[in-house]
Amino acid sequence: MERHLDQELEDLKKQLLKMGTLVEGAIFESVESLKELNIEMAGKVIKEDRAIDEMENAIDERCLDLLALRQPMAIDLRFITMSMKISTDLERIADLAVDIAQRVNDLAGKPLLKPLIDIPKLTNLAQQMTKDALDAFVNKDAELAGSVILHDNQADKLRNLVQKELIEEYMGKDPSSAARAVPLLLIARHLERICDHATNIAEDVIYMVNAEVVKHHPEKLQ
Amino acid sequence: MERHLDQELEDLKKQLLKMGTLVEGAIFESVESLKELNIEMAGKVIKEDRAIDEMENAIDERCLDLLALRQPMAIDLRFITMSMKISTDLERIADLAVDIAQRVNDLAGKPLLKPLIDIPKLTNLAQQMTKDALDAFVNKDAELAGSVILHDNQADKLRNLVQKELIEEYMGKDPSSAARAVPLLLIARHLERICDHATNIAEDVIYMVNAEVVKHHPEKLQ
Repeated sequence: MERHLDQELEDLKKQLLKMGTLVEGAIFESVESLKELNIEMAGKVIKEDRAIDEMENAIDERCLDLLALRQPMAIDLRFITMSMKISTDLERIADLAVDIAQRVNDLAGKPLLKPLIDIPKLTNLAQQMTKDALDAFVNKDAELAGSVILHDNQADKLRNLVQKELIEEYMGKDPSSAARAVPLLLIARHLERICDHATNIAEDVIYMVNAEVVKHHPEKLQ
Repeated sequence: MERHLDQELEDLKKQLLKMGTLVEGAIFESVESLKELNIEMAGKVIKEDRAIDEMENAIDERCLDLLALRQPMAIDLRFITMSMKISTDLERIADLAVDIAQRVNDLAGKPLLKPLIDIPKLTNLAQQMTKDALDAFVNKDAELAGSVILHDNQADKLRNLVQKELIEEYMGKDPSSAARAVPLLLIARHLERICDHATNIAEDVIYMVNAEVVKHHPEKLQ
């Protein structure tokens, strides 16, 4: 029985990792579709979101079955309940990639405001934080999770920079730029929210490993 | 023992309701602070968010204790796991009220673009959906939860209307309006996301009551 549970937890972990890989791909492709204003690629991100939605449901079902049938304790219990929270965060990250892809549709046919300000930098940060949060989960690595959380401030700063520049340098000077600037401003916010979700995952990892709540207690990371 | 679990579930429900009342208050006060550009009231919303954060942590802890010590089955198990998801959604709704309050700070000292377009209508919808989702949870009312989900489209439409009007009628005509229009545009998005979280709660309620997944399957509601 004990061995059986281990195997089931291993399967659950693999399923979450598979979902994570799809989600990281969705972030990447949504921003690629922005860079190239590639409507077809944006459409692919939107279409493939359905598979990620289904994975969230499947993971939830599996977790509930494990809770009901195996009555796990301690770190196993925390692993399963945190898996349910993490699958929700991953699904919402994928939704944000869809939001980005939809903004690409809004921008279609209009010349891009170039350069894309700090959006590529923010994209790298969002991808790295998501990847690190998942790695921390898989390896039960509370230290890596802590470093993810500490990066969240940087995401806020980059988003604010993008926003300020778009308002002051573009919309504030040329009213005809509004229809192109607003989608970029929203994309910066979508990316920053991806970082927020990665932070949520990292907080859940720390709780899973240490049974210590750092959510809403950033001072515990210093 | 059975009776004991019932009492504990009743306590958990009360705690979630208390959190819900605080969250509904935060939505209300954030939008009131917008209407009056009342920085003091906005500051209160931001400050009081900490209590809501703590409630999320407390509810999670209580749920994990119940799972570990009581090993509940069937609807009780779903009630507890959905409570953990619902507390997360409530906490994020409160974060969105904080986002709105921060936009009020951005707007401070600038004349408001009047009227606030359809923002008051979107606010009412966000408040009603949040309230109904929580009522559905407390009363295990899958029908009410279903009606919450069906309202989500309306929220998307209202947000799009606000956004279109702000871009075309304000920013697109008068570049000096951008710094006042962007915060309003973001507030409309914050409100629409509150509706999304209410929808998530409603989906969890239906799952709890019927053990049927409607999340990502809107056709099951028709």
